[in-house]
Amino acid sequence: MTRLETSAGHKHRLVIVGGGFGGLETVYRLRGVDLDITVIDQRNHHLFQPLLYQVATSTLATSEIAWPIRHLLRRFANVKTLLGTVTGVDPAAHTLGILDGEPVPYDTLVLATGARHAYFGHDDWEPFAPGLKTLEDATLIRRRILTAFEKAELEPDPAIREQYLNFVIIGGGPTGVEIAGTIADLARDTLKGDFRNIDPTKARVILIEGGPRLLGAFSEELSDYARRALERLGVTVHFGQPVTDCRQDGVSFGGQVLHARTILWAAGVQASPAAKWLGVEADRAGRAIVNGDLTAPGHPDIFIIGDTASVKSGDKPVPGIAPAAKQQGAHVANTIKARLAGDETPRPFQYRHAGDLATIGKRAAVIQLGKLKIKGYVAWWIWGLAHIYFLIGLRNRLAVALSWLWISLTGVRSARLITQKDAHEDA
Amino acid sequence: MTRLETSAGHKHRLVIVGGGFGGLETVYRLRGVDLDITVIDQRNHHLFQPLLYQVATSTLATSEIAWPIRHLLRRFANVKTLLGTVTGVDPAAHTLGILDGEPVPYDTLVLATGARHAYFGHDDWEPFAPGLKTLEDATLIRRRILTAFEKAELEPDPAIREQYLNFVIIGGGPTGVEIAGTIADLARDTLKGDFRNIDPTKARVILIEGGPRLLGAFSEELSDYARRALERLGVTVHFGQPVTDCRQDGVSFGGQVLHARTILWAAGVQASPAAKWLGVEADRAGRAIVNGDLTAPGHPDIFIIGDTASVKSGDKPVPGIAPAAKQQGAHVANTIKARLAGDETPRPFQYRHAGDLATIGKRAAVIQLGKLKIKGYVAWWIWGLAHIYFLIGLRNRLAVALSWLWISLTGVRSARLITQKDAHEDA
Repeated sequence: MTRLETSAGHKHRLVIVGGGFGGLETVYRLRGVDLDITVIDQRNHHLFQPLLYQVATSTLATSEIAWPIRHLLRRFANVKTLLGTVTGVDPAAHTLGILDGEPVPYDTLVLATGARHAYFGHDDWEPFAPGLKTLEDATLIRRRILTAFEKAELEPDPAIREQYLNFVIIGGGPTGVEIAGTIADLARDTLKGDFRNIDPTKARVILIEGGPRLLGAFSEELSDYARRALERLGVTVHFGQPVTDCRQDGVSFGGQVLHARTILWAAGVQASPAAKWLGVEADRAGRAIVNGDLTAPGHPDIFIIGDTASVKSGDKPVPGIAPAAKQQGAHVANTIKARLAGDETPRPFQYRHAGDLATIGKRAAVIQLGKLKIKGYVAWWIWGLAHIYFLIGLRNRLAVALSWLWISLTGVRSARLITQKDAHEDA
Repeated sequence: MTRLETSAGHKHRLVIVGGGFGGLETVYRLRGVDLDITVIDQRNHHLFQPLLYQVATSTLATSEIAWPIRHLLRRFANVKTLLGTVTGVDPAAHTLGILDGEPVPYDTLVLATGARHAYFGHDDWEPFAPGLKTLEDATLIRRRILTAFEKAELEPDPAIREQYLNFVIIGGGPTGVEIAGTIADLARDTLKGDFRNIDPTKARVILIEGGPRLLGAFSEELSDYARRALERLGVTVHFGQPVTDCRQDGVSFGGQVLHARTILWAAGVQASPAAKWLGVEADRAGRAIVNGDLTAPGHPDIFIIGDTASVKSGDKPVPGIAPAAKQQGAHVANTIKARLAGDETPRPFQYRHAGDLATIGKRAAVIQLGKLKIKGYVAWWIWGLAHIYFLIGLRNRLAVALSWLWISLTGVRSARLITQKDAHEDA
């Protein structure tokens, strides 16, 4: 009996938890394979996270970067989609616990449950410095940014008005750089002329990076270019001084206090609790340390991939980015197909790094593809075309292209909506 | 001294509360007039309410039908926009109270504060039967509808599964008819094939109207056509039996109980408290009964327009629709201009009814323009072109046209997102 046969006589049950890049790639590669596949996610939509910062900054609509998982998999006859929150794994019983639902049995399990932003022991900062991982996070940040300008317009006290016009972004990775550049664009371009008491172009955007430079994954040359490009957009960049406190009215770093009413967190992530569910070892960010073939130690039937797995390829850690998750999904699918064919040999995962890219506002980007480095407006176009290419569905590609074209021509952002309540603001 | 001069030597201050169709039309007509105008709204966006049901049914994105008021008025040098919630009017002091803000002084006041849905003394029904007036209402209803299909897919008990697939709409006016037709389209067209345990095309959509027919404002011929067109889409229509109870698991009407887990309210509205603020008489729906020139009785400097005003033109009540609000806004602007020119003669408002229109699903509509009656697919096209024409901004027109074209060709709805939490569901 190979591992992919079961004694009960039913078809082999593969359960994939998480409809992100890793989970979906696994399913895509198993189309038509004789398996009974279930995809479980606590949200009904796959999210194109690389563009999430554009929802947070009023550039794109929520529906332009999200797509119902169920719909993406409608033509996969061997796949069921289930909206549910996984509460744990019982490896002995081969079942998953589901909140308010029956346990789901599996023969092979793929955990692709991703990560949330994390505050490294400072969870009390979250109300003041929201992070960006979900559509709800993005609409919350959009509301905070737009509301800050509205409050500044109303504020009679000039000192407090200035605080409302200070925007602090913590973390100088791609997300932090992209948010900072886009807020600068928003203030200088989109909001220009819309107010009577304040001048939104006078808004200050401050990016704080604890390390020695921006975009640590890029070469120093591109890091430096990114800093200069941000500064040209009016962004102030601080290095080497980690933030030591976040409050409603500002942040402390490097011994100084910066007053600001909008603080955004782009400084780190914490993996989902997959490692805890299985009782396997995790790294500092909570990612399960998996075997070279992406199985969980001691659980050859359980794979862990994407942002919730810690694995090395060669001697380098695999980064937490969409292409890595997709490659891992494809690798797991191939392993499962090999096992189905009776080949149980462990197959070590080899990561191929395609490159890194990040935008700075709406006219510049940096791209590093191995030794090839591209920057500036040409890089922005490559970045834009690549992201449109990777978006799911022609309709979303058209809609996003229309949004970008419009903003590029007019500066007008259509998704400038203050919606939903902010629990923190009500309190 | 005419009414539009002020003794203090400052420019005459016109304050308009509400950035809906009525309030914006007033401002548009006063562009360049020598007034100090302030527009106050508790939301940052003007909402194109006639298409709100399309957000609630996953057809359009929120940002396609909403536009920042501040942006719409950016080129009006005499206008300030203020995001704030009005708490009351002090006519003696000529000031408006603002939540968490300084009182706003006015010389002339226009109250265009609209209406909310209302339950006629049954406010306890609201958690079970949400109504549709704001973007938040629309995303809540969208979440309820999509979640019902997800819960049905998971539900092992066939009786409860059926309840999740029953959708009850209360109220047979244009909104009720449009929601019912679009849910039927969604179930039969968009969701077809996406589920494994349920067949969404078997969902039942039930429209309950307390009166004798649908679309009371239309001719009987068109009412009857609308009923037949809905029935062709699979909608069950009940007349003449008002709903007597709404619960989490169903409604009671005409002595029978109908089990359903999704109930939507399109049966009535309650005006905003403008009448209470001023202590003037209101009709049953809470609308202030205004003078023929749209001023509040006893307050010649205060105009009340749109859904929060009750007024007759000839001997007929002016209906609560966007064109009526816009005509009233234009009338008030003309009155203010006349007063500026020293002409204080009261100018009675004359309403010109252009027509009524409503869609039934994505291939039929009814239009009544005086004696001219149009129905079917041609009417749908006229309806669609008219609504695209009245949308604000070329970008939104392009985006909405793209969305409709796409749904028409493929049945795929891009805005099928379950987002935000539902306070009621959490409880």
